[in-house]
Amino acid sequence: MTISFARGAPSLDIIDIAGLQDAAVAALQADPGGMTAYGTAVGYLPLRAWIAEHHGVAPEQVLVTNGSMQADAFLFDALVSTGDTVIVERPTYDRTLKSLRGRGADVQAVELEHDGIDVVALERLLVAGARPTLAHIIPNFQNPAGYTLSLAKRERLLELAADYGFVVFEDDPYVALRFAGAALPTMVSMHPEHVVYASSFSKTVCPGVRVGYLVGSAALIERVAELAVGAYISPNMVAQGIVNQFCRSGALDRSIETVKEALRDRAAVLCAALERELPDARFVEPEGGYFMWVELPPGTDVNALFAAAAARDVQFVKGVDFMLEGGESSLRLAYSGVTVTQIEAGVALLADAYREVTAGAHADVA
Amino acid sequence: MTISFARGAPSLDIIDIAGLQDAAVAALQADPGGMTAYGTAVGYLPLRAWIAEHHGVAPEQVLVTNGSMQADAFLFDALVSTGDTVIVERPTYDRTLKSLRGRGADVQAVELEHDGIDVVALERLLVAGARPTLAHIIPNFQNPAGYTLSLAKRERLLELAADYGFVVFEDDPYVALRFAGAALPTMVSMHPEHVVYASSFSKTVCPGVRVGYLVGSAALIERVAELAVGAYISPNMVAQGIVNQFCRSGALDRSIETVKEALRDRAAVLCAALERELPDARFVEPEGGYFMWVELPPGTDVNALFAAAAARDVQFVKGVDFMLEGGESSLRLAYSGVTVTQIEAGVALLADAYREVTAGAHADVA
Repeated sequence: MTISFARGAPSLDIIDIAGLQDAAVAALQADPGGMTAYGTAVGYLPLRAWIAEHHGVAPEQVLVTNGSMQADAFLFDALVSTGDTVIVERPTYDRTLKSLRGRGADVQAVELEHDGIDVVALERLLVAGARPTLAHIIPNFQNPAGYTLSLAKRERLLELAADYGFVVFEDDPYVALRFAGAALPTMVSMHPEHVVYASSFSKTVCPGVRVGYLVGSAALIERVAELAVGAYISPNMVAQGIVNQFCRSGALDRSIETVKEALRDRAAVLCAALERELPDARFVEPEGGYFMWVELPPGTDVNALFAAAAARDVQFVKGVDFMLEGGESSLRLAYSGVTVTQIEAGVALLADAYREVTAGAHADVA
Repeated sequence: MTISFARGAPSLDIIDIAGLQDAAVAALQADPGGMTAYGTAVGYLPLRAWIAEHHGVAPEQVLVTNGSMQADAFLFDALVSTGDTVIVERPTYDRTLKSLRGRGADVQAVELEHDGIDVVALERLLVAGARPTLAHIIPNFQNPAGYTLSLAKRERLLELAADYGFVVFEDDPYVALRFAGAALPTMVSMHPEHVVYASSFSKTVCPGVRVGYLVGSAALIERVAELAVGAYISPNMVAQGIVNQFCRSGALDRSIETVKEALRDRAAVLCAALERELPDARFVEPEGGYFMWVELPPGTDVNALFAAAAARDVQFVKGVDFMLEGGESSLRLAYSGVTVTQIEAGVALLADAYREVTAGAHADVA
């Protein structure tokens, strides 16, 4: 059976199926009319209100979507035109890269350090004349790197946004999954006028429920709502009604505890196994989320490693997939969808594949 | 309380809430992994298979979306470029008009007769040089008119599509709601290579579940799936899993019977009330669906009627909303969201409003 370090999704054992069943029954009981009617483009109103309260903003600042990728797509449609400069982290989420390039944006990648985007390099770009519309930032437990933006860098980034007039798109689906260290404030709470915020219930309820959301100025949310009504009239009221019930009944908090505990264990086992089995690997122990970025010695052929791992039924995503260029000796390991036992076995197989590939490389040189 | 002949949506009493609760519980029991995971851009595979079987096509020819408006949007994105000629019926669904004009299409409206689009007028356009990419047709119980395309005209339309190389977009959300007369074959079943078909569970399960679908060639479905993955990764697996269970358990067939029976009664009461209370109104008794097109004597000020009705807490949609031009003395009455009692009361109030408006008009002339 395949051991997938590729899949950035939760394993079934940490999804509260009984809680979802209960939520579906209770929600349809409590509000049959609201859940079965077309509803509105801004989302199921009770869930919108819950999210607004959670973020301490007005409901008019929230729009609930069919997953947060859809929120990203609407936001890019609203804010990014062909030729606009958009800052991304290097590496960053592959779908974001694809989506921005598909819109003809001039994508400028700024190095992601262990404490988040290199704000000095970003400032250098700005001083040199770059005038971005948007900076796309995944602040917590970044996908693919697992790194978290420090408080000092959050502050600096917001200053740069204010000085150079760009919007920070704070893409924050993993925020609730911190299993170590202290939580940091969201940038949207620190400096709301320069930030649009997106998050999701994919990681705290389940991906298949496809519920994400945007928080922004009421004016921006109104613009996005017009795009939403044109695209689909309204998002999924049944799914959003289920999520609303799940949030308000306390099931969400319990689910988050379950998920965090599993992720904490899996990350610890993964780090220990890598140190033991694959001492050449360099990585930062994550404090939350799904992912870990692993750097192998320069010159390591990750394409060959990918094939050798696949031959052993082990999957990961190559680093090159998350960058415009570079990343050839890096990989992303997701520990969200694998059990502790699978992680132990998977790392042993990965190390075996690595030995084969590097032995082969030496043989070629010889 | 407002009596709404405007709302093209079912009243809550004809939605099977208990059936939806049962379907949610059973579906999550049967396939917890499939319903909670990301799934695929083509939709929840068991539902896709059910739809394929229902239409007698291969699963590769089906893509399940978040409501059929989303299916329309993807299809227009795939097939319609700025400046392309697109044929629509006159009158037609207002959101389709808006969506096509928003994409910069050259929208050409062809008169809708009681037995469907005027194929002679369409041929005249084609002979005169029009080269449409697409003809958007709502064949059954059209929105807003309630008219149905005859078999002879279906055949003629498909001949024209073959001769002039355009695609017929058969937009068919009401097909299951026939409560009188004999069913006609879908155009996609008659001549699949010239037709893309869309339908929805909004009218047979409920709108809030937001599940629609496309049927087309495998090549087109593959193109649309790429647009879908970019827009939202995958549509709503939880909602589609519920619909799948609802279809396969027999609840769908029972729901359709409930809905048809209610619509039959409501249409009959509406027609009788109009004949009695508003003898100036011209209309065709519908054989299914939600809507009826009502023509008042030329010169009737429907704007004034709209205001006079609103003052009596009665709502409808003005004919002008469904056309690029014209429709000033017409209106759309939806009987899907109103009970028989509300229909009786609503028509009496509408007739009263009409008398006020026409008396006023006469007074102005005098």
